[in-house]
Amino acid sequence: MAEESETLEETRATIENTLRNLQNAKQFAFDIGSSLVKIAYSSSVSKTKTNYDRTMRKHGSSVMRLHFIQFHIKKFRECLDFIQKECGPLRVKSAVCTGSGTTQYQDIIANALGVEFHKVNEMECLVKGNNFLLNNILDEAFTYDHHNDVCKYSFETINTKSQFPYLLVNIGTGVSIYKVESDECFERVGGSSMGGGCFFGMGSLLTHTNDFDALMRMAEEGDHRSMDILVSDIYGGRAHKLGLPNDLIAGSFGKCADAEYVEAVKKNSHYRSDVLRSLLLMISNSIGQIAVLYASTLNANRIYFGGYFIRNHPIVMRTMTFAVNFWSQGEIQAQFLRHEGYTSAVGAFLKGVEMFSDSHPEEADPSYMCSWKEHYAGSTALGRFVPYGPSFV
Amino acid sequence: MAEESETLEETRATIENTLRNLQNAKQFAFDIGSSLVKIAYSSSVSKTKTNYDRTMRKHGSSVMRLHFIQFHIKKFRECLDFIQKECGPLRVKSAVCTGSGTTQYQDIIANALGVEFHKVNEMECLVKGNNFLLNNILDEAFTYDHHNDVCKYSFETINTKSQFPYLLVNIGTGVSIYKVESDECFERVGGSSMGGGCFFGMGSLLTHTNDFDALMRMAEEGDHRSMDILVSDIYGGRAHKLGLPNDLIAGSFGKCADAEYVEAVKKNSHYRSDVLRSLLLMISNSIGQIAVLYASTLNANRIYFGGYFIRNHPIVMRTMTFAVNFWSQGEIQAQFLRHEGYTSAVGAFLKGVEMFSDSHPEEADPSYMCSWKEHYAGSTALGRFVPYGPSFV
Repeated sequence: MAEESETLEETRATIENTLRNLQNAKQFAFDIGSSLVKIAYSSSVSKTKTNYDRTMRKHGSSVMRLHFIQFHIKKFRECLDFIQKECGPLRVKSAVCTGSGTTQYQDIIANALGVEFHKVNEMECLVKGNNFLLNNILDEAFTYDHHNDVCKYSFETINTKSQFPYLLVNIGTGVSIYKVESDECFERVGGSSMGGGCFFGMGSLLTHTNDFDALMRMAEEGDHRSMDILVSDIYGGRAHKLGLPNDLIAGSFGKCADAEYVEAVKKNSHYRSDVLRSLLLMISNSIGQIAVLYASTLNANRIYFGGYFIRNHPIVMRTMTFAVNFWSQGEIQAQFLRHEGYTSAVGAFLKGVEMFSDSHPEEADPSYMCSWKEHYAGSTALGRFVPYGPSFV
Repeated sequence: MAEESETLEETRATIENTLRNLQNAKQFAFDIGSSLVKIAYSSSVSKTKTNYDRTMRKHGSSVMRLHFIQFHIKKFRECLDFIQKECGPLRVKSAVCTGSGTTQYQDIIANALGVEFHKVNEMECLVKGNNFLLNNILDEAFTYDHHNDVCKYSFETINTKSQFPYLLVNIGTGVSIYKVESDECFERVGGSSMGGGCFFGMGSLLTHTNDFDALMRMAEEGDHRSMDILVSDIYGGRAHKLGLPNDLIAGSFGKCADAEYVEAVKKNSHYRSDVLRSLLLMISNSIGQIAVLYASTLNANRIYFGGYFIRNHPIVMRTMTFAVNFWSQGEIQAQFLRHEGYTSAVGAFLKGVEMFSDSHPEEADPSYMCSWKEHYAGSTALGRFVPYGPSFV
């Protein structure tokens, strides 16, 4: 699990550590986006037991385990080289691939790994992965409450069958909204051009900072009220007579139309943070609003948010939660998934299992038919914020 | 009718010209927003006839006429001074006022004009004015078709009674969306913080230009494709397989996340125009989308757009029309009003007529009960783009 800012040595160490069981890999699935590559693979690992002196010893028997690894697209070739040189010859002869970068990279994968290449539909993978995680992983879905000082996360294990139809809002470069009725029955009902790409691109233009996570951290420190016109700025204390909350944002960036004002606030040390907070709220409110409107139109009462804009950043979860609560008048809560970054990779992996069970029964991974238990210890290396289930808090 | 960029002398000349019949004024209505003040007043004017030598001569009889004047809030005091000094003593003893600036300016108006002050609810004025214009003014509503080379405007006279419920989308600093069922029965069903204030404020931050109309003109020249990630940028020619148009904007400002790219495009002479075009499309698409979603939820099949963001700028009408058409899949057309800038002032005027008929019958203006005929010649002085009815094209 590699962060974007890692050095070459760290990346190499991470690759070695993560791929150490690769020779026993039963199946690969690739999810190649425009910036990140995610790989899901299964391998059998020896059961271990921790001794009193904190060393580990083998238990004797082995279990199948699903592993995830993600890299920036720039390090993709490096990762394939490692697999090829250190882990070959691989036992697998087939790999599954999804995502917008598939066409561009399919030959590279096929050549590097010497595998037969199977391309699968990314929308199907996203939905299948989401359904699988909700149904099989303990405490997968959670809601976020910024104002709860004891625990900001409320977890629940969901049987999706009773929850259909639900909305799946995937926020990558743009926003795609799916109405999901089952693994097979789903539809892209709408979307928006205001997603992660908008925050990243416009945030970069406005603040001259080119690191997505740095922009998010700055937004967390900012105060939008120096940028936005609030209802109270227009109506003073009389807003409640109009049925509008005083702190409702009437016009995002509205105060910036005044050149003299902008000259003055630009001198504040927190100016860039304020700009980014305002931008984040504008985008989150917009996504929350259309999600609630689609949910209302389509009679869905659950909305799951995922994609690289979310990345389970507390500030994004907070603003999305606020937006959904506001626009639905408290009827709907925004829900998030602990493994949201790997939803499509999980879906692709599962589609591979089905595919090989039919056409290549000798390569089929039986783990789909087995029980699923999360190996929590591994989650600590995810390299980004992932909340644990309540029993581990 | 005064443009913001007019000089003091021009303003004075405009005031004199517009207010020349003020001594005979029967009734005033003020709509005071956060930047513009609009005044509607009625007065009796002598009927005139144009001679062959293009001079005008009086016809003998007189008619009642409703006049409109608008000023930037900074010139408001000047206008009141003129009325006070040149037109006094006024025959009217009462004035009607609406808009968010009412509380701040009510004492100034009362003192300057020596009138009794009546405050009326701005939402009621907006709806009443809109209904009145639709029902009474020939060819008031129109649709805009950028791709029609013969005539981009299609006009229609609407009997609103058969069109209820309709949506009224008022785009000022922010966006307010009303569901209208009659003059009395309407509701603010939603809104957005992304309206004129967002275009003006964010546009100013991004381009260091502080003139709303100049920003619009620049947007008209720009090309968003140098800023936005299109579906075709992600999927190449394969977008149609996903059921998405190639030129659909996947991520507004998405290309700006790349610092090197931004450095390069900043050198283009049209960089600022491109930024503004992208911003305009982002805001228009967002408003169009929520308008269509609310229309769908509320079973409204007509959407009227007004407010200072629209100001009947062709580029805004074009982008709003595109957005509504796209999101409604051609089911709904965006509609605009020729007099949209004066909707609230008209509503306030009418509420004044009703009010004075009851409580001050001696000051009641009978014109509400009369027939309405537009004085087209006066429209040429509106100082901004207003399309004429088809018989005048």
